[in-house]
Amino acid sequence: MRVLIIGGGGFLGQKLARRLAAAGELAGRAITALTLADLAPPAPVTGRVASQSLALDITDMAATGALIGAGHDVIYHLAAVVSGQAEAEFDLGMAVNLDGARHVFEGARALGAAEGSRPMVIFTSSIAVYGGELPEPIPDWAGLTPTNSYGAQKAAGELMLADYSRKGFLDGRALRLPTISIRPGKPNKAASSFMSSIFREPLQGEPAICPVSPDYTHWFLSPRACIENLVHAATIPDETWGPRRALALPGRTHRIGDMVEAMRRVAGDAPCELIRWQRDPEIESIVLGWKARLDPARALELGFVADASFEDNIRYFLEDDILPASH
Amino acid sequence: MRVLIIGGGGFLGQKLARRLAAAGELAGRAITALTLADLAPPAPVTGRVASQSLALDITDMAATGALIGAGHDVIYHLAAVVSGQAEAEFDLGMAVNLDGARHVFEGARALGAAEGSRPMVIFTSSIAVYGGELPEPIPDWAGLTPTNSYGAQKAAGELMLADYSRKGFLDGRALRLPTISIRPGKPNKAASSFMSSIFREPLQGEPAICPVSPDYTHWFLSPRACIENLVHAATIPDETWGPRRALALPGRTHRIGDMVEAMRRVAGDAPCELIRWQRDPEIESIVLGWKARLDPARALELGFVADASFEDNIRYFLEDDILPASH
Ligand SMILES: NC(=O)c1ccc[n+]([C@@H]2O[C@H](COP(=O)([O-])OP(=O)(O)OC[C@H]3O[C@@H](n4cnc5c(N)ncnc54)[C@H](O)[C@@H]3O)[C@@H](O)[C@H]2O)c1
Ligand SMILES: NC(=O)c1ccc[n+]([C@@H]2O[C@H](COP(=O)([O-])OP(=O)(O)OC[C@H]3O[C@@H](n4cnc5c(N)ncnc54)[C@H](O)[C@@H]3O)[C@@H](O)[C@H]2O)c1
Repeated sequence: MRVLIIGGGGFLGQKLARRLAAAGELAGRAITALTLADLAPPAPVTGRVASQSLALDITDMAATGALIGAGHDVIYHLAAVVSGQAEAEFDLGMAVNLDGARHVFEGARALGAAEGSRPMVIFTSSIAVYGGELPEPIPDWAGLTPTNSYGAQKAAGELMLADYSRKGFLDGRALRLPTISIRPGKPNKAASSFMSSIFREPLQGEPAICPVSPDYTHWFLSPRACIENLVHAATIPDETWGPRRALALPGRTHRIGDMVEAMRRVAGDAPCELIRWQRDPEIESIVLGWKARLDPARALELGFVADASFEDNIRYFLEDDILPASH
Repeated sequence: MRVLIIGGGGFLGQKLARRLAAAGELAGRAITALTLADLAPPAPVTGRVASQSLALDITDMAATGALIGAGHDVIYHLAAVVSGQAEAEFDLGMAVNLDGARHVFEGARALGAAEGSRPMVIFTSSIAVYGGELPEPIPDWAGLTPTNSYGAQKAAGELMLADYSRKGFLDGRALRLPTISIRPGKPNKAASSFMSSIFREPLQGEPAICPVSPDYTHWFLSPRACIENLVHAATIPDETWGPRRALALPGRTHRIGDMVEAMRRVAGDAPCELIRWQRDPEIESIVLGWKARLDPARALELGFVADASFEDNIRYFLEDDILPASH
């Protein structure tokens, strides 16, 4: 099994790479090659299998085709310009999220034609594809009327992936990820950044600002469960997956105030006191448009998982991202 | 008011051009220029205003930008590779229906930036965007899971048009057209071709084959009502249109057997006897997947219209397409 992770230097790409290297297998087959590609060569990972790192800009069609054409069985396409940047730099978002995705799909199509195979392409979409007026909880068959460019580009990518799959060019699977929290590392410019930083910073003794009211409610998944779902996506037989190639991953609806109480139960009062509550109308104007309630019936049926509680998210962060570094 | 029709040499493009030339105005403003563009320069039309004809291949980004950049207030984007051909020639469909649409939208964006305007772009989508398992009648907020490449390309075009509109680059309006019947002219290779030819040929004394059972049911609109809706789309204020840029046009659900009886009521027994009923499993396998029942609530609310009965479609064909030619 030859596995390629495009966007392998990012937050989820690195976690997925470590998970696959440690297991040494995917979908019951031994991993014989694990290639990580990103704008800069990603940090290599080791385990039962060692990764190989390459630089790739997916806006370069020829380079993308050449890298993919080298031969892979499963391609995780995680590379993206995230929401805030895609909104601020429209043409960059189109080039990476739409054209870049198409270059990846075209590369897989050419590889499949050359090898007589149907490469599996696992594409990370987002709940940003949902927007506007929708029944809630959002059913699997709801229409996509994204209210930001990132969501529109992901939704168009889903449509292409589904059509390439229907044509038999590849075996595409698109997962609409919830907001992944707690994201380790530094705050970024995403409007959702606080949804990780109000836990991440206080759990490390640093202050943080919460720009929304404790009543703000949103749809979440832990990085650990997200990675398990990315792995699970590769194990589902094609017939079981069926003609609908995109699905919303399971998640949990949490109220910010309740998430802070979950942190209190796991880590005591001290971190909670490091949060300063200071509403930011600009951030609120963006995040209040986001959807908080989904009904991911199909994903649950196919065996994808959510976290049991936000306490889990807190514990996973401490176990996966804080304790290893302190050793 | 400067109006451009891309695909102006096609069936609907020519009818729209004649309608606009005859009226001499659109959305209450006098038409000062009416430009028709298509692969070959379209047949010119005259009336209160005379058209100008140009050759344009929308797969050529620079040529598309230059033509649009010459200045227009309303751009009808009707050019497309239709369903059968987009399925058989995948790359051509992607190039015309997806990339071509983007070139048109980019051209309008550049024009808007240069003129300080927000050009109106009216895009003809299709009920081919609907597919798979959907609640019926299909509500306005149903998800798009097209089961053919043409539908996938139209759906992706809708997403881009909505996002370009949200960004303020243009004022986009996408109409999901029902199957337009009766289409004049020659049969084409579309699987839906019989839905016009079993009326068109017999009404002109020629035989025709109906490849489905009289119980086959589908979603229809007459060319005349379609053109009125294309004109109406330009008259609706932006605020009224709202953030959802695409809508399903009204239509009527008809059973083929009932449509033939409608022809009998308008034109007598003779044409009906020219239809040979001979089921074609290949055609049935395609058209049985199409949707027959929609609930176009939003379009009706916005003043778009359907035909009163299929007798209307028959009469319109005789008045608009047969009688003028026999003079
Ligand atoms: N983290 C979340 O909450 C979340 C939620 C929904 C969806 N997603 C999606 O999951 C995927 C991974 O997210 P993440 O949080 O790891 O993001 P990330 O920003 O950490 O990683 C994305 C990676 O893509 C790379 N990239 C950007 N442009 C590229 C280009 N032109 N060529 C090659 N690589 C390029 C970046 O360098 C980065 O390493 C993305 O597709 C994202 O849209 C994430
Ligand atoms: N007629 C229907 O039943 C129906 C139903 C749903 C949607 N539509 C849509 O309505 C629009 C008009 O349909 P129609 O029935 O008049 O189709 P048509 O085929 O008669 O006209 C389409 C025109 O587009 C032109 N064209 C194709 N490729 C081009 C290119 N690369 N550059 C420039 N022009 C190009 C063709 O030459 C043709 O004149 C199309 O977008 C179609 O998808 C039609």
